[in-house]
Amino acid sequence: MTKSVGILNVTGYAGAELARLLHVHPGVRLAGVTGRSAAGKRLPDIFPHLFAIDLPITETLDTAGLDVVFSALPHGAAAEQLVPLIDAGVPVIDVSADFRLKRVEEYEAAYKVTHPAPHLLARAVFGLPELHRDEIAASKLIAVPGCHSTGVILALAPLFARGLISPRVIADTKTGLSGAGRALGLAVHFSEADENVAPYGLDGHRHRPEMTQELGLLAEAPAPEITFVPHYTPMTRGILSTCYAELRAGVTLDRAGIMALYRDFYADAPFVHVSDTPPSTKHVAGTNYCVVHPSINLETGQIVVASALDNLGKGAAGAMVQCMNLMFGLPETTGLQSLGLFP
Amino acid sequence: MTKSVGILNVTGYAGAELARLLHVHPGVRLAGVTGRSAAGKRLPDIFPHLFAIDLPITETLDTAGLDVVFSALPHGAAAEQLVPLIDAGVPVIDVSADFRLKRVEEYEAAYKVTHPAPHLLARAVFGLPELHRDEIAASKLIAVPGCHSTGVILALAPLFARGLISPRVIADTKTGLSGAGRALGLAVHFSEADENVAPYGLDGHRHRPEMTQELGLLAEAPAPEITFVPHYTPMTRGILSTCYAELRAGVTLDRAGIMALYRDFYADAPFVHVSDTPPSTKHVAGTNYCVVHPSINLETGQIVVASALDNLGKGAAGAMVQCMNLMFGLPETTGLQSLGLFP
Amino acid sequence: MTKSVGILNVTGYAGAELARLLHVHPGVRLAGVTGRSAAGKRLPDIFPHLFAIDLPITETLDTAGLDVVFSALPHGAAAEQLVPLIDAGVPVIDVSADFRLKRVEEYEAAYKVTHPAPHLLARAVFGLPELHRDEIAASKLIAVPGCHSTGVILALAPLFARGLISPRVIADTKTGLSGAGRALGLAVHFSEADENVAPYGLDGHRHRPEMTQELGLLAEAPAPEITFVPHYTPMTRGILSTCYAELRAGVTLDRAGIMALYRDFYADAPFVHVSDTPPSTKHVAGTNYCVVHPSINLETGQIVVASALDNLGKGAAGAMVQCMNLMFGLPETTGLQSLGLFP
Amino acid sequence: MTKSVGILNVTGYAGAELARLLHVHPGVRLAGVTGRSAAGKRLPDIFPHLFAIDLPITETLDTAGLDVVFSALPHGAAAEQLVPLIDAGVPVIDVSADFRLKRVEEYEAAYKVTHPAPHLLARAVFGLPELHRDEIAASKLIAVPGCHSTGVILALAPLFARGLISPRVIADTKTGLSGAGRALGLAVHFSEADENVAPYGLDGHRHRPEMTQELGLLAEAPAPEITFVPHYTPMTRGILSTCYAELRAGVTLDRAGIMALYRDFYADAPFVHVSDTPPSTKHVAGTNYCVVHPSINLETGQIVVASALDNLGKGAAGAMVQCMNLMFGLPETTGLQSLGLFP
Repeated sequence: MTKSVGILNVTGYAGAELARLLHVHPGVRLAGVTGRSAAGKRLPDIFPHLFAIDLPITETLDTAGLDVVFSALPHGAAAEQLVPLIDAGVPVIDVSADFRLKRVEEYEAAYKVTHPAPHLLARAVFGLPELHRDEIAASKLIAVPGCHSTGVILALAPLFARGLISPRVIADTKTGLSGAGRALGLAVHFSEADENVAPYGLDGHRHRPEMTQELGLLAEAPAPEITFVPHYTPMTRGILSTCYAELRAGVTLDRAGIMALYRDFYADAPFVHVSDTPPSTKHVAGTNYCVVHPSINLETGQIVVASALDNLGKGAAGAMVQCMNLMFGLPETTGLQSLGLFP
Repeated sequence: MTKSVGILNVTGYAGAELARLLHVHPGVRLAGVTGRSAAGKRLPDIFPHLFAIDLPITETLDTAGLDVVFSALPHGAAAEQLVPLIDAGVPVIDVSADFRLKRVEEYEAAYKVTHPAPHLLARAVFGLPELHRDEIAASKLIAVPGCHSTGVILALAPLFARGLISPRVIADTKTGLSGAGRALGLAVHFSEADENVAPYGLDGHRHRPEMTQELGLLAEAPAPEITFVPHYTPMTRGILSTCYAELRAGVTLDRAGIMALYRDFYADAPFVHVSDTPPSTKHVAGTNYCVVHPSINLETGQIVVASALDNLGKGAAGAMVQCMNLMFGLPETTGLQSLGLFP
Repeated sequence: MTKSVGILNVTGYAGAELARLLHVHPGVRLAGVTGRSAAGKRLPDIFPHLFAIDLPITETLDTAGLDVVFSALPHGAAAEQLVPLIDAGVPVIDVSADFRLKRVEEYEAAYKVTHPAPHLLARAVFGLPELHRDEIAASKLIAVPGCHSTGVILALAPLFARGLISPRVIADTKTGLSGAGRALGLAVHFSEADENVAPYGLDGHRHRPEMTQELGLLAEAPAPEITFVPHYTPMTRGILSTCYAELRAGVTLDRAGIMALYRDFYADAPFVHVSDTPPSTKHVAGTNYCVVHPSINLETGQIVVASALDNLGKGAAGAMVQCMNLMFGLPETTGLQSLGLFP
Repeated sequence: MTKSVGILNVTGYAGAELARLLHVHPGVRLAGVTGRSAAGKRLPDIFPHLFAIDLPITETLDTAGLDVVFSALPHGAAAEQLVPLIDAGVPVIDVSADFRLKRVEEYEAAYKVTHPAPHLLARAVFGLPELHRDEIAASKLIAVPGCHSTGVILALAPLFARGLISPRVIADTKTGLSGAGRALGLAVHFSEADENVAPYGLDGHRHRPEMTQELGLLAEAPAPEITFVPHYTPMTRGILSTCYAELRAGVTLDRAGIMALYRDFYADAPFVHVSDTPPSTKHVAGTNYCVVHPSINLETGQIVVASALDNLGKGAAGAMVQCMNLMFGLPETTGLQSLGLFP
C-alpha cells in the first residue's frame, strides 16, 4: 500500500533530490513539502527541473496521515522542528547533523550551538544501513550521515571492524561542489571554482566526529585518530575518498586478502560495490551506490582504500530513501536501482 | 508480460544509455547485447557504471524470442545488419541515420555511401512520437532522429505546421560533447574541449536534411531553408537549440499567442514541456524530456524559440524507449519518468 | 618614461584583470587601487593570485601625478565619481556603460537611471581601436565597450561598413560566466551553471544599443535591427559570437570574397585575427585578441560570421590597456602580446 | 644580447607552452621547432592559438648558432636525439625523464627501456632551481622534473632538509588532465573525464623515484618512503599536492614554527610563494609559481602540506625557461612574471 511522506525544507539540494527520487519510487506518495522563504510558491518555481511535481510549498507540514517525515532542514533548525514530531510519534528521517552524534559535547563543540533535545540522542539511529540495518528497520528516528562520513566510513569499516590497522588514519576527500549546498558564496562561484582544486577545512571539519564515532564503535583498538582533509574539485556531484592506513604490527595482508575481506564484509550490502578497479565518481552519479576499492601500495605496504559516491545520492537523499525502505519493510533497493548517469 | 529485447552495438554512448534505461524499465528484459571489438568481454568491463548489468557482449545477437531489436550501430553498418532482421519480420528501432530520410539521394549525398536497402525507406517511420505517434505504434521499423534534429524540429514544428513563418530559418545549436560519441579525437580531448566554445559543421551537417524533411512535411509553404550551425560547448550532455524565424507577411502574433499555440500543439505530448521561462540543458539531464520556450524579440519582432534536451536521452536512447513503449502498447511514459539530474 | 596609473574599483574581475595586465606592462607603474568594501585591506587579501602586487586598497584615489585613471566602477557610480576627474583634466578610461552611448535617452532607457553628466557624452570616444584608433589617441575620455558588443561589432563591421547586408541581423552569443562579474547569484552558482547552457536576456540586453550605435555609424543603409540573444555556457572566460546576416538584394559575394574583405578591413588591426578556420574561445583565453571567421552557408547563402574573444581581455581589461597604449603614444601592442593559455 | 633557441618536439603541450612563453620573453628568439608527424606544416596549423608564431615545423633542428636546445621529446626518444647534441657541446634543457634519475637501474625499472647513455646521468643536473640553483647555472645538461615531482618535492623539502619528519610520507596529488598530454585516450576523453575524480597509478607511478631521490638527497635520515597516489580531476591545468608526514619522535613544531621554517627555506626562491592560506590551483594557472601552505592538523598533530602549481608552467615549460634564465645569467624571473589567469 502506498505510503504518504512529507519533506521539510525541500528548497535545498538534498530536499530537491529527495523529491526527485520519490517521484519515481513505486511505494510512496509525496504529500507535502515545506520551505521557509519559498512558502506560497510551487515546487517548479524554485526547481524548474521538478516541473512534473507540481506541489505547493507550504510553511508548515500537515503531518496527519504521514507515514514518515523527511527533514532536510539545517542543523539546529532540524532538532527544533523535529522534537514535537518525534514526541508525537511521527517517524522521522533527518539528514542534518542534529541526531548523528551520541555525545552531546561533541555535537556542541563542533556546531557551536546548544542541543535542544539531548535526551533523544540515545534513541536516534545512525542512518548507515551497512552498519545499522536492523536498528534502522526498528527505529522511528534516523540520522543520515554526512556525505564525507559515508565515503570514509564505508572505505575503512572493514579494516577497523577486523582490528587490522593502527588507529591513526588519513582521509583525503575530493568533493563536488553541490556538497556545499545552494547557499551563495565565493567558494561556489562558478568563475572561482571552475578549474580549481583546493583543500579546505584545515582547521577541522564537522564530519570528523561522525567518522570517529562510527569507526570507533567497530574497533576493539583505541579510538580512531583521523586526519581528515577535504578538497573542492570542479564538479557538481561526487565524493572520492582516498583513505590511508597502516597495518598493525604483526598483521599481514596482501591485495587478494584485502579484496576478499571487503567482499565478505559487504556481501549483504546491495549498495556497496567492491571493485577490482579504482573507483570514479562519474560511475555513480545520480545513484545510491558506493564503489569501494581496497588496495595496498606495492612499494610501501601502505593500505590505500578509495571510495566513490554521489554526495546527494548515497551521501544524502538516496540514503534517506534506503532507510525509509528498511523502515517500511520494503526491499532495500526499491526505487533506488538507477545506475550512474555516465557519461 | 515482460518483453525481451536486444541491443546491437552496446559499446557506444547511445547503446550504454539504452542499457541503463532498460535496467529500470518495468516491462522489459535485456536479453543480449553485441559489440564488435568488445565481444567476449562482459558489459561492466567496458562500462563500469553498468556493473549491475552483468551480460556477456557477443559478436552477434540471437534474435529468436526477441520482441524488438535496438540498433546503436553507426550508419551504413546499421542498414547492412538490420536488413536480414527486417526481412525476417523482427521489429527494429534504429538510432542511426540509415532509415531516417525518405529520399535516398539525400541520404547518399549526406553520408557518401550507397544505401544497401533503399526499398525500405518508404516503410520506415521517423521516430519522433510528437509528429508520428500512430505510425510508430503500427510500425516494425523505426528510425529515431538525430539529436540536433529532435531539438530543432520540436522547436519549430508548431510554426511550420500552422504556416506562420517564412521558410528561411536559423538553427543555432549548442551541444554537449557526448554527442560526438565515444570515438577518440582532439575535438573531444578534455584539455582542448574544456573551457571552449566553437562552431563546427560550417560546411554542412548531416542532421540538416532530417530537419528539412520533417518540417517540410508539416508546412504548406515552400520547403524550409534552414541555416544550421552547431557549436561545441564544454559539457557532456545536453543540446540547447536556439531557432530564429520571421513571421510571414500579414501574420500577427504576440508572446501570449505563440505560447498558446505551442501549448495547444503539444497538449498530448508527455515529453514536451512548453515553458514560460528560458530552458536550461541541466534541467533535463538524464531525461527523455524536451523543454521548449517560444518567444518574440521585443525590439525586432523576430521569433526566437529555444529548446533543451539530453542528446543521449530524448536525443537518442530515451526516444528509442519511448518508441518501444508505443510499439508494445505500453503507456508512452513507462520507465521514462525520471526528472533531470539537477544540480 | 614610466607612466603612473590608478584603478578605481579593483575588486571586480575587470579591475583585477587590469592589475594583472599592468603588472607585466613595461611602460607603467600601478600607483594606487580603490575598492569600497575592501578599503583597508591589501590587494592580495582580496585576490590571492595577485600576491605579487602588494598594494593597499584605499577608499579614494590620489590622482595627483597619475597619467591615467582606469575605472572599473559599475555604471552610474562610474559617471558620478569620474565627472570631477574629467573636469579636472585627468585622462580617464572607463569600462562601464556610462559614456558609451551618444544618445542619453538610449542610456537612460537601458539602465533605468538618470545620467549625471550627459554633456560629456559627445566628448567621450568609444574605446574600440579597430573603429576609432585616431580619436582614442587624441581623447581624454574613453568608454570601453561591453564584452558582447566587441565580439558582435568586430564580426559585423566590415559588412555594414561596405553596405553589403540587410539591416536585420542576428547575434547569438555564448559567454563564459566571468562576464556576469564577481557578484553572487544562482546564475553563477557552480552547481547550477556547470554542465548547463541556457539563453538569457530574451527581454532585451543592455549591450544591444552599443552594437546598434556603432554598426549604424558605419552603414549608409538604415539603422541595424539586431536580434541579440546571449547564452550562458559552462566556462569562465570567453565569448563566441555567431552572427547571421543576409546579403542585400543584388549583392554577390562568395567565401573567398568575404575572407578578402575581412582581411582588408582589419589589415591594420593587430588584435583582430581573421582566420580561415572557425574560432575557439580557448585559443584566445587570457589575451587581447579577437579571432574572426567570416563564412557563407553553402546551402542557404546565409552569411555566418563567428568571432571569439576573452571577455575580460579584449572584452574589458585588455581593451583598456590597448586604449592606454594609444593614448600614451606607445606601440598599440605593448604589454598585450601574450598568446592564448591553451590548453 | 638576444639568444637563439630551438624546441625539439613542439607538438605536445609542453612544447607548445614553451613556445608561448618564449614568444614574450625579452631575451630570446625562437629560431626553430621540430615535430615528427607535423613536419612540413607551420606551427599555427597545429596550434591555432600560436597564430603569431608563424614558424615552419621541421623534421630536424639546425643547431648551429643556437644557445640552447629545449627538448620536449618523450622519454627514450629524448636521450637518443640529445646525445649527439650533448656530445657536440650544445646546451640542452630536457623535460623528459631521461636524465632526471641518478641511478640507471631506477630509470630502467620505471620506464622499461635500456638507457642509451647512462654515462651522462652523473653530469645532468635536476632542473629544480629551488634545490640546485648554482649547479643549473653552471650546467649544460638540465633535466626538468616531472610535474607531480615538483609539487611534492617543494611541499616536503624543508621538512626533510631539516630532518624533522619520519621517512614514511603520503603524497596525494590531484592533477589537471593536460598532464596526460595531447595523446588520445579514454582517460582524457571529455565525456568520461568531465565531472569525474578518480585515483590512478595505484600500481606505481614513474614520478615517484624522482621524489625519493631528491628528498633523499636532502635528508640525513633513511631514504624517504613515499606512498604516492595521483588523481585525475576535471580541469585542464594545475596540480594540487597534499602531503602528509609525521614529526619524528622528540620533535616539536607548531603552526607558527612550520610557517617560519618554510618562509626561511624559500626566502631566495622567487617562484615559491609560502602562503598563510590554503593554495588553489586556479591562482597559479598559466604561471611559473608554486604556492606552498604548510600546516599541522589540530586534532592529530599530523603535518599537512599542500602545494599548487601549473603542471605546464612550473611543472614543465616554465621551469625550462627558469633554468634557461639561470644558464644565461639572466635574472631568474625574466619573462616569467605573469600572475595567475584568475578567474
